[in-house]
Amino acid sequence: MSLFRPNVDAMEAYKPGEQPPAGAKVIKLNTNENPYPPSPGVAAAIRAELDAGAAPGDRLRLYCDPKATAFRQAAADATGFPFDQILHGNGSDELLAMLVRAFVGEGETIAFPYPTYVLYETLAQAQGAKIVTYDFPRDFALPPQLFGSTAKLVFLAAPNSPSGTVYGETPLRKLAQSLTNGLLVIDEAYVEFAEGHMLQLARELPNVVVLRTFSKSHSLAGMRLGLLFGPRPVVDGLWKVKDSYNLDRLAIVAGAASLKDGAWTKANAQKVKATRARLSKELAALGLEAVPSQSNFVFARCKDAATAAGAYRFLKEKGILIRYFPLRLLDDGLRITVGTDEEIDALLATLKEYLARG
Amino acid sequence: MSLFRPNVDAMEAYKPGEQPPAGAKVIKLNTNENPYPPSPGVAAAIRAELDAGAAPGDRLRLYCDPKATAFRQAAADATGFPFDQILHGNGSDELLAMLVRAFVGEGETIAFPYPTYVLYETLAQAQGAKIVTYDFPRDFALPPQLFGSTAKLVFLAAPNSPSGTVYGETPLRKLAQSLTNGLLVIDEAYVEFAEGHMLQLARELPNVVVLRTFSKSHSLAGMRLGLLFGPRPVVDGLWKVKDSYNLDRLAIVAGAASLKDGAWTKANAQKVKATRARLSKELAALGLEAVPSQSNFVFARCKDAATAAGAYRFLKEKGILIRYFPLRLLDDGLRITVGTDEEIDALLATLKEYLARG
Repeated sequence: MSLFRPNVDAMEAYKPGEQPPAGAKVIKLNTNENPYPPSPGVAAAIRAELDAGAAPGDRLRLYCDPKATAFRQAAADATGFPFDQILHGNGSDELLAMLVRAFVGEGETIAFPYPTYVLYETLAQAQGAKIVTYDFPRDFALPPQLFGSTAKLVFLAAPNSPSGTVYGETPLRKLAQSLTNGLLVIDEAYVEFAEGHMLQLARELPNVVVLRTFSKSHSLAGMRLGLLFGPRPVVDGLWKVKDSYNLDRLAIVAGAASLKDGAWTKANAQKVKATRARLSKELAALGLEAVPSQSNFVFARCKDAATAAGAYRFLKEKGILIRYFPLRLLDDGLRITVGTDEEIDALLATLKEYLARG
Repeated sequence: MSLFRPNVDAMEAYKPGEQPPAGAKVIKLNTNENPYPPSPGVAAAIRAELDAGAAPGDRLRLYCDPKATAFRQAAADATGFPFDQILHGNGSDELLAMLVRAFVGEGETIAFPYPTYVLYETLAQAQGAKIVTYDFPRDFALPPQLFGSTAKLVFLAAPNSPSGTVYGETPLRKLAQSLTNGLLVIDEAYVEFAEGHMLQLARELPNVVVLRTFSKSHSLAGMRLGLLFGPRPVVDGLWKVKDSYNLDRLAIVAGAASLKDGAWTKANAQKVKATRARLSKELAALGLEAVPSQSNFVFARCKDAATAAGAYRFLKEKGILIRYFPLRLLDDGLRITVGTDEEIDALLATLKEYLARG
């Protein structure tokens, strides 16, 4: 007999994107990693922390700062957001999990559009929450049924994945104001590749939080860093459910160093955006329907699901990993991370080869 | 009106041990950190990860291994425990939180003795669980009321904190077998300073898991590393509620490197145990009642609570931090982390000075 909670027994684990075996020669365009290295300040800050004590790594024997002060202060300096309204997470994934635990009791509701980041569903299942989803229209505009939702949490990725689309400030303000009983969580994992952000809503409204990750624009997916920006009462309450020492010493100095080198991350985002424009144009030239993207990936629809699935497999055989979702509303599309220009050239050439085979 | 769950609104945040301001000259004997540095292999492995890519820190732009294979394999090699029955956590704190989320529904019960690690209570409150505690007798033997508990989880720190006491294998096997509906979680945070461990129970019984931390014997409190050892069905289910990328790239290589240098951590534990013996003897000579400790700290009772509280404050004024708990059954005692011999000499001299003042 299982001792697990019934909702845990019933659920499947979240499956992270495919990772090639170490050492494999693969062009990896499937998990929206940044093709450019992090700021040199990051490795320098980590080395300085290792060198700071009486012996190599001596400082690691001491607990890290549970408040991650250096990291949060750098975030406050970079954004102008008040320090006390910023909370740090072990990736934005941990912040999403904290929100669920803090706001959603068993059987209470979490709402989000479909399709979006799959983790929202996994977290809701782990909590035993009720899930309400509304399909996006084909252009990925905001589903009108979200307005007036009574859910405890409404998750909204902006830009959304896998579409790369955004909604604009006015609709999101109206959405937040229409919620009768809950919080609007704007997940800005990809926002540095977009034209605007929603931090102002998290300052202005009592029920909006904004999440950021360092996995994309900061080139630090391997360091697990995320930030939450929100109203003071929300942030104060979240501290209670946070693991005390959720960021290790090296993650804290890495995050602070990256925030201090804003020019570096901005320059990389510019390069990605330039390559994205070229990729979108070339995909259209190959006959695919590329959704206009504000992110570091492009979702492009093929003529049908069989073509898309075949393209995924063909590319994989040729050593190019992209993301294919065998799911409703998505199975005719390919999500392609914007890599370097050379990687995108290889992707396009191989895709062309596949399509030419009919 | 608060949007938080009522149980979250009602709770207080867990308060981690006091941290002196950076740069302050303090003898820190309050959070059971190891006074000796981690294995030199740890810093070397971190540097190697930073140097591995095309630019400094280039690999950090890639997601870490969600399975932490290198770390878990090193743990399997070091312990002989099957690889598939080992799960990694961001400190054992995260593993404790995962257990609560996976096994305990709202209103269900978590049981543990009192006094023990305070986080158990915080995690239960965050989940909206019912808490049942049984007072330890003065010698910290196992409270008999735990036997036959119907709780979903029974938490047992062994060695316990702040007492440093253990229970032996036979009582713990009987306890596990007496549970009608739940799991026995043996939290072995301090086990490398004790005479035995309980991994065999986690191999043998279907409802026992053992937790380990790297914060004490591995001198890696600042890196947040923990391990869970348990039956395969339990471990398989816990993967579902685990944050996918809960350990960053540097933590994974640090943990693996430390496990590969078992001689280093063992030698440090031997030094700590030798100093602990001397500390216990000297405390007794000063008239305190030192509980026989199997851990890297000693809990010593003063003649009354006022004396203990005064000692804590006096030591703090002199730049020596120890832990004082103004709590029932504990307020006449001091918990002193075993530091270096020099640190313990300073502690004893200052304590002697305080006691001499009457």
